Amino acid sequence: MPEQLTLYSHKLSPYSHRIELALAEANVKYKNYQVDLFNKPKWFAAKINPLGKVPTITYGGPDVDPEDPSPLSFKLAESSVILQFVAELYPESGLLPKDPVEHAKVLFFMDTVDRHFDSPGNEWMGGRTESYEGYLKGVEMIQGLLSEGSEFAVGDCYTIADACIAPLLSRFKITYETDIGGFPVGQGHKLGEELKAPKFAKFMDYTQGMLERPSLRDSNDEAYLAEMWKKLITERRQ
Amino acid sequence: MPEQLTLYSHKLSPYSHRIELALAEANVKYKNYQVDLFNKPKWFAAKINPLGKVPTITYGGPDVDPEDPSPLSFKLAESSVILQFVAELYPESGLLPKDPVEHAKVLFFMDTVDRHFDSPGNEWMGGRTESYEGYLKGVEMIQGLLSEGSEFAVGDCYTIADACIAPLLSRFKITYETDIGGFPVGQGHKLGEELKAPKFAKFMDYTQGMLERPSLRDSNDEAYLAEMWKKLITERRQ
Repeated sequence: MPEQLTLYSHKLSPYSHRIELALAEANVKYKNYQVDLFNKPKWFAAKINPLGKVPTITYGGPDVDPEDPSPLSFKLAESSVILQFVAELYPESGLLPKDPVEHAKVLFFMDTVDRHFDSPGNEWMGGRTESYEGYLKGVEMIQGLLSEGSEFAVGDCYTIADACIAPLLSRFKITYETDIGGFPVGQGHKLGEELKAPKFAKFMDYTQGMLERPSLRDSNDEAYLAEMWKKLITERRQ
Repeated sequence: MPEQLTLYSHKLSPYSHRIELALAEANVKYKNYQVDLFNKPKWFAAKINPLGKVPTITYGGPDVDPEDPSPLSFKLAESSVILQFVAELYPESGLLPKDPVEHAKVLFFMDTVDRHFDSPGNEWMGGRTESYEGYLKGVEMIQGLLSEGSEFAVGDCYTIADACIAPLLSRFKITYETDIGGFPVGQGHKLGEELKAPKFAKFMDYTQGMLERPSLRDSNDEAYLAEMWKKLITERRQ
């Protein structure tokens, strides 16, 4: 029998969503426990992750209630590390290529996503910078890395590079479409218009492909995200 | 014949040093080219790394002069990604454990080093924060992850987790000993005294072991680093 695997996650967290995608693509059975981030249970920091962050997984040990975790399971946090762990646990999933060069391309893509795409995008989304120029530079960098002649980020099959960026793509699309974010009103729609330029066609085609992928489509709750963002931003402004 | 491997590095860069350590531990023959960071050659950004950063490696392709790189080689940047690439290229080196859980522990250690040890340490060293409390918290986190009953970070042999932190350990030791840094005069020495407390004994023992390791000892130029830091800090203050 395979070892138990429990994911502690939250629907708002794109980093949790990354792990859900990888596990869905690898066809893994696991428990998905939603941690109440607005009222964190004490046992979570005490027994799962001292930093109190999601996603965190437990692997192995007895098959217990997620609210009563066992000290015998292996605990692992940080989405990039968990993605690699999932790929290593299920090598037949093809989530990480075996060839060292292709493998390195996947890891470099993930590093670029975090450093140059997610980070400036979040700054803009959160209203901590006035312009989305940093985010657009990230889009260009990502576009420059995308595999030629394939619908995937690296090579010709779905890898953790795709799982890493896909939840961000779906979230930024909501931003362009709904204009919800910490930025000045209208900037979300403006960015959406800019992204229609031919120079971003490859990135937008890739985005579209990722959004139509069943693993994402089945786990993407755009209405929930839009509603929650609106609520959180309104509360912050009051 | 093995593929060519060229490392573009700089002696000031702990991230370059990480790769040198991993390659030394794996007993790999390679070319080490020092990039003049204060007067970067144009070909470096044009042909090696558009961001102009070290370390970057080239792998494969024809065996060329490092100053005239071939478009046929694979280029790879970001020290954590390069460390993993080296470990994948030379699996017999043992730089990355095969067992998925041990493998994940190495990657999580590296992530913690970058996020919670290097980052606050650099803030303090560079004088961007007034206190080294953030750095000391990082020390405690690292100490909590260190393998029990072994001189290594994870498990019982040298891995890229050790190569990742060792250049930072040697650099912070210089800071405690020489008091050179962007912080207020005397803070370096004060931190050195604090680290002598019994509660940091495990971390300091681990540091000592890493500093005595031949791969580090043979590549560690403390006098050069201390002199260069002094010069750079003096220039900045003028």
